[in-house]
Amino acid sequence: MTGTRTVELQERPDPVILAPRDVIVRVVAACVCGSDLWGYREFGSGNARLMGHEMVGVIAEIGDAVESLHVGDFVISPFSLSDGTCQSCRAGSPSVCDHVTFFGTRDHDRLPVDGAQGELIRMPFGESSLVVVPGPVDDALVPHLLALSDVASTGHHAAVSAHVGPGDVVVVVGDGAVGLSAVLAASRLGAKRVIAMSRHASRQALAREFGATDVIEERGDAAIDALRDLLDGELADAALECVGTSEAMEQALGSVRGGGRVGFVGVPGDRVDLDVNRLFAGNITIGGGMAPARTYIPELLPAVLDGTMQPGKVFDLEVPLSEVAEAYAAMDERRAIKVLLRP
Amino acid sequence: MTGTRTVELQERPDPVILAPRDVIVRVVAACVCGSDLWGYREFGSGNARLMGHEMVGVIAEIGDAVESLHVGDFVISPFSLSDGTCQSCRAGSPSVCDHVTFFGTRDHDRLPVDGAQGELIRMPFGESSLVVVPGPVDDALVPHLLALSDVASTGHHAAVSAHVGPGDVVVVVGDGAVGLSAVLAASRLGAKRVIAMSRHASRQALAREFGATDVIEERGDAAIDALRDLLDGELADAALECVGTSEAMEQALGSVRGGGRVGFVGVPGDRVDLDVNRLFAGNITIGGGMAPARTYIPELLPAVLDGTMQPGKVFDLEVPLSEVAEAYAAMDERRAIKVLLRP
Repeated sequence: MTGTRTVELQERPDPVILAPRDVIVRVVAACVCGSDLWGYREFGSGNARLMGHEMVGVIAEIGDAVESLHVGDFVISPFSLSDGTCQSCRAGSPSVCDHVTFFGTRDHDRLPVDGAQGELIRMPFGESSLVVVPGPVDDALVPHLLALSDVASTGHHAAVSAHVGPGDVVVVVGDGAVGLSAVLAASRLGAKRVIAMSRHASRQALAREFGATDVIEERGDAAIDALRDLLDGELADAALECVGTSEAMEQALGSVRGGGRVGFVGVPGDRVDLDVNRLFAGNITIGGGMAPARTYIPELLPAVLDGTMQPGKVFDLEVPLSEVAEAYAAMDERRAIKVLLRP
Repeated sequence: MTGTRTVELQERPDPVILAPRDVIVRVVAACVCGSDLWGYREFGSGNARLMGHEMVGVIAEIGDAVESLHVGDFVISPFSLSDGTCQSCRAGSPSVCDHVTFFGTRDHDRLPVDGAQGELIRMPFGESSLVVVPGPVDDALVPHLLALSDVASTGHHAAVSAHVGPGDVVVVVGDGAVGLSAVLAASRLGAKRVIAMSRHASRQALAREFGATDVIEERGDAAIDALRDLLDGELADAALECVGTSEAMEQALGSVRGGGRVGFVGVPGDRVDLDVNRLFAGNITIGGGMAPARTYIPELLPAVLDGTMQPGKVFDLEVPLSEVAEAYAAMDERRAIKVLLRP
């Protein structure tokens, strides 16, 4: 990404092993994330950025000290890399690892880490981050495996953070790939009613396919009024905020009953403040943040492998990596929910 | 309370039944709450206030429609009254009842509700709010039963809201009666280490009696440094905010690891804002508010009746109601942790 609304495919040297625990992965599929649209729409200052943080691929090369990964392994990468040993990792929160490392930046030894939208990637923390998919991988599974890299795990995190369980009435704010994944997660976790807030026909359809029982098209106060109408004057037990704006947070907070729970996973595009008095007065619990994808991928993988969970349905457009600019434009203009890229 | 640092005992007419579901309770014991000190220290504008919202007593009279309570029943009142039928009540959150009613105010029919620091109280929602203590009540149990009315339930709420469980390392911010009760709750819920932040010898001693394994006397950044020293560079799994100030919230947030949980029950004395980006970046879950005491009292009562839980130890001063002014002064000046009042 070289500027506002400008993403270019550029040639770069093939990565090489820089540290004994490094692995190099040949990308099978990557994709564009809704959170990248903040920078796409307003680039700000700074250098060109290596893009992409979601990826499945095959191990192409390993460093001398790597023991648990082998050349040829098919792997899913979580959207952030983690050391696997710090307190947060041990507690199941690898996304807030003491040495958390992001694609397209530098690792804690100041060595460069490639973006996932490419052909080959040098990765630190490969053994503690990558999840190996057993056996031969059918190409039809690729989108579903790729979705675990971020959106399926992030939607799951919204629902887990809001303690969604059997019998709950759940509102999902946001109909991007994460919001739709949150609908899927809430439904899988046993919610009796999942209400998607969406005004786009194609997204409503996928929300229903993912388990939404109801759709609300209104926004703001009108959305809350519509929710009360739908629930005979009551409100939801939980709301999942999957946008990252003050408006979406407000809508989520307004959707839950006293003692309700809000899970938030929308990357805040701006400063969002919460008034503690309001949480206090409503007995609201709020939790979320960056999903611990490395924890969730192995939990969700069996359901993807046996076909009971098909999170890759969020990909409604696939283009070759050479058309990456179109991939961003299609998502920016909401012509596509989420775009899969093949190198 | 008639002004800043002014609480007076005044004669009032005996209350009478005003609605068919009313009950009138003869107060056996009441007490002063730390949250009342906000108004005590800065009265602000408005009329004199009827004080007290914690109480145990005996049913003196019942309205014609009351079925489940009887004259002579010994009852514990939660600090707020609730209808027992609205969505929040049915979901176990009676403190945010659609018709929540506070002592010393008016109910939803605009009828007056007495303060708990008195001899006789007319109460609406008696059947859905009061909890009957079975059998004859030994006078030595009174402080422990009275503590369930608010502080023991509120401390429990802090720990429950932070999902404290076996093996957790828990920090408690605040050494008032609620903070000490939170120490007791965290310990009872199985925390392996409970770290009380306190700089008062008598409160430290009670904290240890309630299960604190460690005490930190520092405040602010120095407290976090001391915590890291204590935990070999790590942080707590959960923190319980039992004060209600920005400083205390900051201390709680700074005390937990990535993916940690904060329970907050300190009544906010002022506006306290939370930066969602910070919660997002740390994967912090935060929950709390007004404790659903009506839900917790029956859960905790058996442990109080069999003596395994003695939450009334927070009362380190007992005075007759006629000396109510001294009760407030003693708490304001931190000469007493919590003061029990006998009419």
